[in-house]
Amino acid sequence: MVNFNDVVDARRRIEKYISLTPLDFSISLSSEKTKVYLKLESQQKQKSYKVRGALSKITALTEEEKEAGIYAISSGNHGAAVSYAGYLLGIKAVKVFVPETAPAAKVEKIKYYGAEIVQVGGNYDETHSIAEEQMEKLNMTYIHSGSEVQAIAGQGTVGLEIMEQNPDTDVILVPIGGGGLITGVSIAAKHMNPSVKIIGVQTEACPAMVKSLEDNVFYEYFPSEESICEALVGGVFDIPFRMAKECIDDILVVSEAEIRKATARLLTEEKVVAEPSGAIGVAALVNNPELFENKNVAIVVSGGNIDKELMRQLIV
Amino acid sequence: MVNFNDVVDARRRIEKYISLTPLDFSISLSSEKTKVYLKLESQQKQKSYKVRGALSKITALTEEEKEAGIYAISSGNHGAAVSYAGYLLGIKAVKVFVPETAPAAKVEKIKYYGAEIVQVGGNYDETHSIAEEQMEKLNMTYIHSGSEVQAIAGQGTVGLEIMEQNPDTDVILVPIGGGGLITGVSIAAKHMNPSVKIIGVQTEACPAMVKSLEDNVFYEYFPSEESICEALVGGVFDIPFRMAKECIDDILVVSEAEIRKATARLLTEEKVVAEPSGAIGVAALVNNPELFENKNVAIVVSGGNIDKELMRQLIV
Repeated sequence: MVNFNDVVDARRRIEKYISLTPLDFSISLSSEKTKVYLKLESQQKQKSYKVRGALSKITALTEEEKEAGIYAISSGNHGAAVSYAGYLLGIKAVKVFVPETAPAAKVEKIKYYGAEIVQVGGNYDETHSIAEEQMEKLNMTYIHSGSEVQAIAGQGTVGLEIMEQNPDTDVILVPIGGGGLITGVSIAAKHMNPSVKIIGVQTEACPAMVKSLEDNVFYEYFPSEESICEALVGGVFDIPFRMAKECIDDILVVSEAEIRKATARLLTEEKVVAEPSGAIGVAALVNNPELFENKNVAIVVSGGNIDKELMRQLIV
Repeated sequence: MVNFNDVVDARRRIEKYISLTPLDFSISLSSEKTKVYLKLESQQKQKSYKVRGALSKITALTEEEKEAGIYAISSGNHGAAVSYAGYLLGIKAVKVFVPETAPAAKVEKIKYYGAEIVQVGGNYDETHSIAEEQMEKLNMTYIHSGSEVQAIAGQGTVGLEIMEQNPDTDVILVPIGGGGLITGVSIAAKHMNPSVKIIGVQTEACPAMVKSLEDNVFYEYFPSEESICEALVGGVFDIPFRMAKECIDDILVVSEAEIRKATARLLTEEKVVAEPSGAIGVAALVNNPELFENKNVAIVVSGGNIDKELMRQLIV
């Protein structure tokens, strides 16, 4: 479905637009037995890895498709990434569908790079069906955030970089929402070193991939308890679900309280601003030190868009 | 004293060890009239630009000099940078002199990469004289933080990168302590575009370079009021003072209260952890918007090592 060459091609297309984010050794998370490195996608353009997938997809469009325009459905990092990528690549028509309830600050951020905001539906699912209805007649390309070959290939460049930055990496911890990021990272990393282990991390509030794999059922929708990991709630994506057995070696589940602690620890000890969804890998490491003994561990810190008020709560 | 070729040579020697830090466009600091970009040396290895100077100097040593070892005097970013650079380059003997009063957390950070800590003297000046006395008989090379050709050349790579990352840069705002960073940045940037303006920023608590230039006196020592900008207090350095007329177009002075606000703003709005000394350029911009109309402004955010307790105070 997606292979290593797709990732290499994606990198060639996107590298001039993105930051080569650091893979920084963490003194405070490492111990005598475990070396821990942080892959800081929280420092990526638009402060999230999502821009890699959006750029990968858009750069692969034909001139005709670019001319016809693109659209996305997201009030979060993916929406901002698509707007930014569209701007960089000179796409004239960019529509981003967001729920009516989307916070003004997020909408402004998406608007900044010129996307047209279509604010419809009371929640993400409603927005989604309205968007699909509206877009059916139009010829614009849908930019999916993580279940499409080019999106996954673009996100896989994170794995490519990790293995180049530290070829001795034994384990990579990756947050799982829909599963696009871990799929791409795994394809790249396992090609470069088949013995590397790829471990996903989910919040207890919404362990959709864990249940999908346990039940062997594609949970496209999945109920979530309240969560500070807005980027990680909801169901799993199609391609990631179908590729999970070859891509994911294990999934660890952590509590919301542990995620809060990890986010605060990154901020105050590491001086790294991460959103909770991005800090979840740190929570998994801190919770399960015995799993990582004598290993070089890379943790993907996937995003840095944390709300000011939450930052304040965490730091006190 | 220092020229563009020194900077280019320094880059060639150090680039594989450092991060190419982003020059990120700031939506929240930009306006219709002014485009603002942040050069995030706060995301550099060891979270400070100092590692560039240390690596530049050490990579320029002869094998004999490397064998004999190196030393530095600093409990701050420079001490950590020298320890880290020494470790990367396999220098066996690395001594870092710190005052007896240096906080344990800082000393630990320096120690981590293998430097031997020599804790002597009640303050930096005392530590300095004791270090000089002790080191006179030894053959070790002193690694100065900012008044030595290779240190300045290494720090100048920040300017090289800015002009490559955005050739349209009109103005660069640079924090001034001793003046090493601004000197290097200016040499590189003005060579690449002679019309670029280099504006220094100092804290009201210790405007040493402003007074040195006003009085045309080399203030090697300069009194400081209480300041949260620990990296910017004290006198000016020799080479930076002598090169100031050709390198520095203007210096803006900002208050400690403004620096606090700028540090908090970077953290909560930009999601950038900066130490106050690193945020000072933002304070200068916010205070003097009229100076930057119709300009592309690059602000060097020089470091990210902020104390946890201060972070807490600023964010509340």
